[in-house]
Amino acid sequence: MDIQDCPVTFTMSKIGGKWKPIILFMISNGINRFGILQRNIDGISKQMLTKQLREMETDGILNRVIYAEIPPRVEYFITELGFSLMPIIKSMKKWGEEHNDSPEGEG
Amino acid sequence: MDIQDCPVTFTMSKIGGKWKPIILFMISNGINRFGILQRNIDGISKQMLTKQLREMETDGILNRVIYAEIPPRVEYFITELGFSLMPIIKSMKKWGEEHNDSPEGEG
Repeated sequence: MDIQDCPVTFTMSKIGGKWKPIILFMISNGINRFGILQRNIDGISKQMLTKQLREMETDGILNRVIYAEIPPRVEYFITELGFSLMPIIKSMKKWGEEHNDSPEGEG
Repeated sequence: MDIQDCPVTFTMSKIGGKWKPIILFMISNGINRFGILQRNIDGISKQMLTKQLREMETDGILNRVIYAEIPPRVEYFITELGFSLMPIIKSMKKWGEEHNDSPEGEG
């Protein structure tokens, strides 16, 4: 099977990796400004958050809205395409809740 | 939120990355020997496939069964825990099928 044709791999190319699902989950819960996102996602660097947000913007999963205020305010919103991914992310959340019984702080 | 406590991140730690969902999907379809897996997953190296299989074995998602034949035959099976991940992987497959209309071969 050509990797390009595999639908599972295609989906992973959009939301794979360590950060995208959690970023989408946060934004879907109204945590949609850069600084608040960074504070709420432990261990993510400014550079990494920027990279992930840009990739999802390019992929049409997120919209970036700039408000003409001083200082300018930037907010991220999930697009219709992004919302179609939410059932996957919610099922990931559910699975994690059911199976993560490791002691707090364990890597 | 401490990243350790996030159920979405926990799930991604088990099946995140480029390869694990496609490997699990293949094995669930009876493609469960090393060589056949490698042939069916375009672009995966022997080293990478070994690494992914070992991690999933350690995480209790896969069982590795060695048959006492000459030469020894090794097959991988999805555990009960692994099966509980299949709905997530199936919803990834469905999403990919619905949204991957990019021309063949496009990266």
